[in-house]
Amino acid sequence: MDEEIGDFSVHIVGLGLMGGSMAMALRDHAHQITAQDLRPDVLQIALKRGVIDAIGGIEQANVVILAVPADRMTQVLEQIIPSLKTNTILMDIGSTKGKICDSLDQLPEHIQAVGGHPMCGLAENGFQNAIPTLYRNARFVLCETKRTTPHAKKVAEKVAEACGALPVWLDRYRHDYLTGLTSHLPHLLNFALMRLAIDVSTENNDLFQLAAGGFDGATRLARTNESMITGMFTTNAQNIRELTARFREQLDLLDTLFDNPTQLNDELQRIVEARRYYSDNYGERPIA
Amino acid sequence: MDEEIGDFSVHIVGLGLMGGSMAMALRDHAHQITAQDLRPDVLQIALKRGVIDAIGGIEQANVVILAVPADRMTQVLEQIIPSLKTNTILMDIGSTKGKICDSLDQLPEHIQAVGGHPMCGLAENGFQNAIPTLYRNARFVLCETKRTTPHAKKVAEKVAEACGALPVWLDRYRHDYLTGLTSHLPHLLNFALMRLAIDVSTENNDLFQLAAGGFDGATRLARTNESMITGMFTTNAQNIRELTARFREQLDLLDTLFDNPTQLNDELQRIVEARRYYSDNYGERPIA
Repeated sequence: MDEEIGDFSVHIVGLGLMGGSMAMALRDHAHQITAQDLRPDVLQIALKRGVIDAIGGIEQANVVILAVPADRMTQVLEQIIPSLKTNTILMDIGSTKGKICDSLDQLPEHIQAVGGHPMCGLAENGFQNAIPTLYRNARFVLCETKRTTPHAKKVAEKVAEACGALPVWLDRYRHDYLTGLTSHLPHLLNFALMRLAIDVSTENNDLFQLAAGGFDGATRLARTNESMITGMFTTNAQNIRELTARFREQLDLLDTLFDNPTQLNDELQRIVEARRYYSDNYGERPIA
Repeated sequence: MDEEIGDFSVHIVGLGLMGGSMAMALRDHAHQITAQDLRPDVLQIALKRGVIDAIGGIEQANVVILAVPADRMTQVLEQIIPSLKTNTILMDIGSTKGKICDSLDQLPEHIQAVGGHPMCGLAENGFQNAIPTLYRNARFVLCETKRTTPHAKKVAEKVAEACGALPVWLDRYRHDYLTGLTSHLPHLLNFALMRLAIDVSTENNDLFQLAAGGFDGATRLARTNESMITGMFTTNAQNIRELTARFREQLDLLDTLFDNPTQLNDELQRIVEARRYYSDNYGERPIA
């Protein structure tokens, strides 16, 4: 049981930005790569460009990757399960993990399953934006399920590493709370700010000509495909609500300092220092 | 009275990112460039690098640019007024305009004054980050005051254009409301999110290793020098509070859709389309 990823036939369900970039990254590592997608044109292009070896083929795969929006995962799972061969290793890469891993727990015992979430992406998604380097140096969160065997753990780590990412095992619920803060709440704030800007621009048509880099950066995530964000918000609603409540408390607190420049300056300085420390120690990723 | 900017001697008060970049941009346009700053080392470096021709010299200047944080503007004004010669054209480039222009209104009649706010910047500020191209293609808001003569209007426009920017005349209060949305509120949201992340990271030290491009982009403005942000928040507090209240309503509204994926998806799609339209029509500036 010590196969290399080169021994595997990998099948990817959903050839968007994430699935497409994974196919490209695994290209030189896997024995064979196949895929399915709702859009036949995307599959044809991927085949023509040599990103995949064949369309369809889930029945022969040793490793199946589910790369569809988080809120579609359970439904897609139900559709594909009858096609999987015994001991197939199934990994999803949805952006929330609690509900999805709860579903993976319920799979028949002949399936091995691991939850996954690579911490990378681009605001502009779809297969047309896929790049082989998307996963490089990203953390790749892996979550154990009731269907995670020691063998499945090893294979999941190898898949993450073959993509160029760094596997990190994390409890599914802890993942959802923490990425609720690092990813989902930032998306919500970006969408809410853009929505407010739409409203204000109808009152004042000078608005957008005054917008510059600060506005662009604070709304950039609102360019992300809505179906992915819908999946993100609806499958992690409880955590996002809790974090939004905590976020409002931060706004309250800063608001109380507006009338006290010295205290405000001290507090902002503390935040700037933490942000710069973060940047120096975890790197600054240019693309949202 | 149809001088070119080449006839002017320009003096800059405050040689940080904005003042330093303006000195560099005007380098080949103005007759002479002088500056003052609280930090003697910065002035020495600027002189040695040929960014300015001399240290001090406000008494001889035809054009004086105030490039200090917005909350220091009134105090700096009081200090320099006795040194200005008759008919000097004074322009501030603070990030809020209502209170500052109210102060400019009160200047002695022998001073000509225009409020200004170039819509550009970098999160990393200070003279060490100044670049001659910072103002290029940025909107440069100009606000009339009671001390704005027709001559001063022309000169202010020429200064903006010599920097490579596009002058836009706007009412001071309208400016403050609109940039409250396009710039100040984005800063507040970035700082509040980073402050929340600091709190959560003390409960969960896994937090920052899960952060990626989305978090980086949504907190990038929290790297900005705190004294500039203190000036921004305290001199435009009323507008920022009003806009924050409207922002909270957006959060409320999106929250109500979390339990209705179809409606949520439709609403997010509308926002994504607006954001992409904005990006296509106003450009996407890479740096916050």
